[in-house]
Amino acid sequence: FSLRGESANHQPTVQPLHLLTVFPCSCHVLQESLLSSASGYSNYRGILNWCVVMLVLSNARLFLENIIKYGILVDPIQVVSLFLKDPYSWPAACLIIGMGLSFYFSFCFPGTISETTGLIFHIFNLTCLLVIPAATILVMTSMTPVGGVLSLGVYSVLFLKLYSYKDANRWCREIRQAKAKRLSRSYSCKCMNTHSGATHVSYPGNLTHRDMYYFVFAPTLCYQLNFPRSPRIRKRFLMRRLFEMLFFTQLLVGLIQQWMVPTIQNSMKPFQVPNHLIWLFFFYWFFHSSMNFVAELMQFGDREFYRDWWNSETVTYFWANWNIPVHKWCLRHFYKPMLRTGINKFLAQTAVFLVSAFFHEYLVSVPLKMFRLWAFMGMMAQVPLAWFVGRFLNGNYGNAAVWMSLIIGQPVAVLMYVHDYYVIHYGSNT
Amino acid sequence: FSLRGESANHQPTVQPLHLLTVFPCSCHVLQESLLSSASGYSNYRGILNWCVVMLVLSNARLFLENIIKYGILVDPIQVVSLFLKDPYSWPAACLIIGMGLSFYFSFCFPGTISETTGLIFHIFNLTCLLVIPAATILVMTSMTPVGGVLSLGVYSVLFLKLYSYKDANRWCREIRQAKAKRLSRSYSCKCMNTHSGATHVSYPGNLTHRDMYYFVFAPTLCYQLNFPRSPRIRKRFLMRRLFEMLFFTQLLVGLIQQWMVPTIQNSMKPFQVPNHLIWLFFFYWFFHSSMNFVAELMQFGDREFYRDWWNSETVTYFWANWNIPVHKWCLRHFYKPMLRTGINKFLAQTAVFLVSAFFHEYLVSVPLKMFRLWAFMGMMAQVPLAWFVGRFLNGNYGNAAVWMSLIIGQPVAVLMYVHDYYVIHYGSNT
Repeated sequence: FSLRGESANHQPTVQPLHLLTVFPCSCHVLQESLLSSASGYSNYRGILNWCVVMLVLSNARLFLENIIKYGILVDPIQVVSLFLKDPYSWPAACLIIGMGLSFYFSFCFPGTISETTGLIFHIFNLTCLLVIPAATILVMTSMTPVGGVLSLGVYSVLFLKLYSYKDANRWCREIRQAKAKRLSRSYSCKCMNTHSGATHVSYPGNLTHRDMYYFVFAPTLCYQLNFPRSPRIRKRFLMRRLFEMLFFTQLLVGLIQQWMVPTIQNSMKPFQVPNHLIWLFFFYWFFHSSMNFVAELMQFGDREFYRDWWNSETVTYFWANWNIPVHKWCLRHFYKPMLRTGINKFLAQTAVFLVSAFFHEYLVSVPLKMFRLWAFMGMMAQVPLAWFVGRFLNGNYGNAAVWMSLIIGQPVAVLMYVHDYYVIHYGSNT
Repeated sequence: FSLRGESANHQPTVQPLHLLTVFPCSCHVLQESLLSSASGYSNYRGILNWCVVMLVLSNARLFLENIIKYGILVDPIQVVSLFLKDPYSWPAACLIIGMGLSFYFSFCFPGTISETTGLIFHIFNLTCLLVIPAATILVMTSMTPVGGVLSLGVYSVLFLKLYSYKDANRWCREIRQAKAKRLSRSYSCKCMNTHSGATHVSYPGNLTHRDMYYFVFAPTLCYQLNFPRSPRIRKRFLMRRLFEMLFFTQLLVGLIQQWMVPTIQNSMKPFQVPNHLIWLFFFYWFFHSSMNFVAELMQFGDREFYRDWWNSETVTYFWANWNIPVHKWCLRHFYKPMLRTGINKFLAQTAVFLVSAFFHEYLVSVPLKMFRLWAFMGMMAQVPLAWFVGRFLNGNYGNAAVWMSLIIGQPVAVLMYVHDYYVIHYGSNT
């Protein structure tokens, strides 16, 4: 007589029910521990909460002391003053944004000017967006690196947005022409699925100031007609994101002032861990708090600003998932159009990395006024690194390798610039 | 004319295929960010890997220095010597294990002695298992607290194991009697589903020395006939667990020696974070590395030594999932039998907490020779705490509350004892 089959996880045997419930003789099942990779288990939300609780607890005293010493709103005001201190970059930025938009706006109306004339205007406009701020920063001696990075960042974002705006509108025109040629049967189905009661707009009805400014401020780089909209502004969600924004701004400025700057000035030790933490906080602050805050305010529905890059087992997966707005833009306006012209996949990928490397270098070298190519090389080094990790490591080992490259690789690149910058500007100190 | 329906995530509209692929006009979908709790996303395996990488990196230098200074195998040897230094506890433990088992063994054979005589022997035997070591420790002045905790721990485990062994065998006897009475039709189905080719044993064929010693050393507290067995010993798995065991032993001893002891001796500051980290490492060392190591060696198939307590959103969930061997024992041999006698659920739960509180107190007070009831009260305080967290907090807030109670509550209880211990023994120093 056997008691084997009584466990719920085994095949049931014919036994009277009351004996099974009264005598649970068998209570073990063949299974793996959750933390063993063989179990395939992956729900570690609690670990993330643990990190947050530990962070808050271990910083609570520091914050309390800081608040008692300096008052509460010192650092946010300091951040605001970073913008206002740059009279040369900020007015210039406003000027060109206005100029760029009005220029652009004029040739979006179909029929007013020809496609070719429009293209020439467009290329001229985009070139200006990249060249003028860079030239301004290089010429002006009063520009700080922080102000430079911020204004160049704004220009780069605008550049990508206008590129996408032009492309999407051109596609609309081409579809309209195709429609006109074929005297469409199938096109006549006007799908009026409106989101959250907003009226549905079709080309060229989208070419309004209102629509364009919505796109300029929306947290995305890819233009489309009728963005998906969230049904309402959730006030508690908005308040939480606002609190996080202020908290992390304070934390980031505090960390940089109290932790990194002295380390660099004193002894040029490698400072991997603080730098990595600052990058993590920056990620959360920018991609979760700030972008969700803006999106909630504008009822912008698509909140996929990042995917689960923390689980990346390959370098490629990391680059494709940590910054979705840029990744989406690259895919839609650069990678896929290239594939359509017949270029092969590997070449197209390398080209995307090249463009990305160019922008990294542009955003770092111009404000620092040092052309060292470290950022460019760091970005291009991702191609062989991706090959190596993909070839030799997988699973949790691959994930650990991606983390290591973030924890060690990125700060080394930053250190190169910071080192050179300090040697040039405070050469006598070191 | 509308471009709306082109995104893959929207309802498809009737449009020619090539236009859809060539012009991806619509590329946004209504969705939440992954880190928002509304997204329901929970795969954070990468965060766990990040914690491990950060731990290794930030300790690497410390370890290297330690190894250069003291050599590699200093600490493991020190741990072994903890056992050998206790001549009064260790031989006694061996003696009583032998005694307990042989005693027990004799009355397991059905028919040799009556059920009542067996029960008296059993109760006498179990009482001895709890009283004799406690008395030994209290009487012997040469006993260290560490040695005391270890030997009491071994006895408590043996107590729970023998209790389960007797219960499970009694159930087998009762089923056999029921079978004999009813002249079974349904019982005749002998399910011979053997695991990994091992022969299937049925009562009283299980009453052998070999079977009993397997149970005594197996990483479980609940006896059953025919434990599920893993098909083979995986050498790489075994080596990894062995490495982890050695690594964490070194880490734990190092942390306690270099971090906690000075903190307590110097200034009695609250030492939440180190204590909490030590508990976390202890958890991994004991429940993952050590128990899996033993299980792998013994081809013991059921590796569920813990469940996902890190995601606990209530205190009850935490206590039911962090220590599965004890939880399983309580459920099978204490809670469910009580329910069967008609006691209500809340009373039974409180009784389980009472027994647990008794064992916590027993394991702490006796080796320290201080009867302060802090551990007992700490354990009983879980009942109102569980009610509070379950009533007012849920989701990630509940999880954060559980973490806070672990990070703050547990070290406070430990601190109480340590403080009193130091005041008694090194009163002049503080």
